[in-house]
Amino acid sequence: MGKLFIVGMGPGDEAGMTGAARAALEEAEILCGYTKYVELLKPLFPGKTFYATGMTGELERCRYCLERAAEGRLTALVCSGDAGVYGMASPVLELSAEYPDVEIVVIPGVTAALSGAALLGAPLGHDFCVISLSDRLTDWGVIETRLHCAAEGDFCICLYNPASMHRRDYLQRACDVLLERKAPETVCGIARNIGRDGEEIRILSLKELRDAEADMFCTVFVGSSSTGVSGGRMVTPRGYRK
Amino acid sequence: MGKLFIVGMGPGDEAGMTGAARAALEEAEILCGYTKYVELLKPLFPGKTFYATGMTGELERCRYCLERAAEGRLTALVCSGDAGVYGMASPVLELSAEYPDVEIVVIPGVTAALSGAALLGAPLGHDFCVISLSDRLTDWGVIETRLHCAAEGDFCICLYNPASMHRRDYLQRACDVLLERKAPETVCGIARNIGRDGEEIRILSLKELRDAEADMFCTVFVGSSSTGVSGGRMVTPRGYRK
Repeated sequence: MGKLFIVGMGPGDEAGMTGAARAALEEAEILCGYTKYVELLKPLFPGKTFYATGMTGELERCRYCLERAAEGRLTALVCSGDAGVYGMASPVLELSAEYPDVEIVVIPGVTAALSGAALLGAPLGHDFCVISLSDRLTDWGVIETRLHCAAEGDFCICLYNPASMHRRDYLQRACDVLLERKAPETVCGIARNIGRDGEEIRILSLKELRDAEADMFCTVFVGSSSTGVSGGRMVTPRGYRK
Repeated sequence: MGKLFIVGMGPGDEAGMTGAARAALEEAEILCGYTKYVELLKPLFPGKTFYATGMTGELERCRYCLERAAEGRLTALVCSGDAGVYGMASPVLELSAEYPDVEIVVIPGVTAALSGAALLGAPLGHDFCVISLSDRLTDWGVIETRLHCAAEGDFCICLYNPASMHRRDYLQRACDVLLERKAPETVCGIARNIGRDGEEIRILSLKELRDAEADMFCTVFVGSSSTGVSGGRMVTPRGYRK
């Protein structure tokens, strides 16, 4: 029986990793992941075999790990943030039926919705939605419907992949959908380079967010109608003070 | 300048804590939290001053911590899971304007949506909503609207607080709302006692979930229309295989 860990490493710094994530990476012989994350791990785990693929190499990476694990080599597939939230747990488990002799252990981590929220304050203090604006694997129509529904339900909203070089205006398009139902003064926040050099946050209105600069290193938060600013932080009340 | 850490300790076992959470608890002089979590911490952090309050003692706990921090005693307020997701970061920050000399540092942790998902497989592999079924602080009408919108948007859904002694039929009521728009065969999952003794999972249909036993130690997952079962695990595809 082979074994494959799928490990969420948190925002990127060593302190953001759980004890279980660290232990799995120490136990494994082979550490595999997206090029950038493997570079972060190399100095922390000397003596390991590393295997990296770039963006769009996701399925190749999953198969490589399942094959090594099937050969009896204890392997860890590393994801930034959590292993399951837009991470590799899902494609690995989809392929796993072809590798019945591999035990798959998913180790969760702190996803950007949580680490970004902590920097901003407590924007996700009540019911929330997480939506990726990337249409590489999802039709834009589906994304737009979800934005509509999230606004209609007055959820707090966390947006992943708000923009990239090829999708410069996607955050603007998303804000335009949200502005059909949400007030322009809705409190919003941007967290950038969470847990890494150049970490920064910004609190702004939904109207300002529409025209703000955002890139692939940003995670964006859109408040509910009850979200406010307290002590300079973005806060969605849970309701204790009512 | 006083300092207050609000710390998400993850699912409950030591391995589920991040390095940053652990470091904050080691650095603080006073550790404060809900009675049950403080009991978990006592053996791990000997020599600390502990302060615990029971359920409904949330605001008292927040004020106690802000006051100790204002006196210059480094204090950590501990939350299960994450500090911000239905956690104490939100009420502390709401009160923080009254304590301008206290610096508040929020340290995120692995919330039950992530730790429960990892046990089940990858149910949150695409856009998702997190909704609490507790109506202690939220009108049931708001909860019902959000369930409607989450179903309408075909989100994966994670339900916190699915039931308690006083809310035995809430999960059933929630399922009835979801069944207005979602297929009875929708793949669902329950994770119970995550990271603790008696940890267990169950995969079942939405129709079965409606009549399933759930208690306050459960976190419930309802799939989107694309969620399936692969290798015995609950998996929502990200779309790589299309």
